[in-house]
Amino acid sequence: MPSLSPYRPELDYSYAPGFFPSMECLIHRPEQVRRVLLHSSARGREGAEKLICLAEARHVRVEEADRALKNLSGKENCYAAAVFAKFADDLRADRPHVVLHQPGDSGNVGTILRTALGFGIEDVALVRPCVDLFDPRTVRASMGSLFSLRVRIYDAFEEYQKDFPTRQLFPFMLDASLPLEEAIQAVPPVWTLIFGNEGSGLPASFATLGQPVRIESNNRVDSLNLAIAAGIGLYTFTCPRDAR
Amino acid sequence: MPSLSPYRPELDYSYAPGFFPSMECLIHRPEQVRRVLLHSSARGREGAEKLICLAEARHVRVEEADRALKNLSGKENCYAAAVFAKFADDLRADRPHVVLHQPGDSGNVGTILRTALGFGIEDVALVRPCVDLFDPRTVRASMGSLFSLRVRIYDAFEEYQKDFPTRQLFPFMLDASLPLEEAIQAVPPVWTLIFGNEGSGLPASFATLGQPVRIESNNRVDSLNLAIAAGIGLYTFTCPRDAR
Repeated sequence: MPSLSPYRPELDYSYAPGFFPSMECLIHRPEQVRRVLLHSSARGREGAEKLICLAEARHVRVEEADRALKNLSGKENCYAAAVFAKFADDLRADRPHVVLHQPGDSGNVGTILRTALGFGIEDVALVRPCVDLFDPRTVRASMGSLFSLRVRIYDAFEEYQKDFPTRQLFPFMLDASLPLEEAIQAVPPVWTLIFGNEGSGLPASFATLGQPVRIESNNRVDSLNLAIAAGIGLYTFTCPRDAR
Repeated sequence: MPSLSPYRPELDYSYAPGFFPSMECLIHRPEQVRRVLLHSSARGREGAEKLICLAEARHVRVEEADRALKNLSGKENCYAAAVFAKFADDLRADRPHVVLHQPGDSGNVGTILRTALGFGIEDVALVRPCVDLFDPRTVRASMGSLFSLRVRIYDAFEEYQKDFPTRQLFPFMLDASLPLEEAIQAVPPVWTLIFGNEGSGLPASFATLGQPVRIESNNRVDSLNLAIAAGIGLYTFTCPRDAR
């Protein structure tokens, strides 16, 4: 591996910034980790000791790289980062999915990854054009949950449909939609929740692809934040039905 | 009013950055607006014309202030901002409340304000030490919904309790808690949802103050993001019961 560059989308590797995301990467995607960067001032800290221990167990090199860490993190301090090779998985056909269609904000995507994992959804697709899934900001916002998920990026939604032609789709949109609380009265064993772009939502054509769902809110706000909408959708689709 | 400073918490005024938040400020809090700043390059744009029209109707001065806008927004472009005097309201005793206890992230607080308004919750308290409610970043993340809400900042939770001694409190925490879906089986007409700090949550003592509630998620993530937890709580407490 040549010397490290500041992150760019065209690189075949990226960085998991911070102790916790680096640990998650080493634990859940050890085969992807190329090395671990540590700031010289972090030596002796508990987080650093744990990280070194884990890296050694995985035969991953740990190196001091103050300058690379500074380049990586901009203004914020960053004392550790795992350097990992990007990956793409086959999503599991027998599990629920989340599809993010053309999301534009790395914080939102990271937060949705974290929320999906918290509710037991392990398969996430992104549809281009979209924010960079492997951008260190996305990884950071996901708190490293990216490494516990199966993820795949599609160039178009039609490609996702080709891979999974028979699933029941629930696009979150206003057109022709059912309130969420009604939609969950009849949830099939596998399903796909689809969320659109922060500004423009989903194209109107998605209304004919499945059962459109809306989260009822009043007209005093333009819309819900994307990550909030996804959080509510994920919670409602996964929480135990018998309590209702 | 003297010449404008970059935002600092000790100022008695702040900025609503962007066309939409500025409009919201002029529409919902006209008495608080001191002036409207416009970038010279924004003249003739539709958003600028609307804003000027609204400001004139409210007898608010509009001025070109390219440098003040640049100071205000840092790296991002900002073409308009309403300068507004900070405010504090009496929360309404006969309405549901949200209390954010020592929140540390302005993006989370802004997103929660927007979500609360979207679900019809108009009364929000913050408890110090906390992020600055009037920081332009909070205002921006709220998409201007701050100006449609009644807000109050308390130095301690006890002060909130003194103002509202008999309300049913629902602290979101893990200790001794009911799953959310059970808690909403018996929701009183007025209630207060309480959310703790992003990192540390609520102090254990809150478990004895009311009915602790938890959002059930698995142990594969450390916790849900604060704004996501609040979004799920707000949605679940406000969505029509008859669909359940």
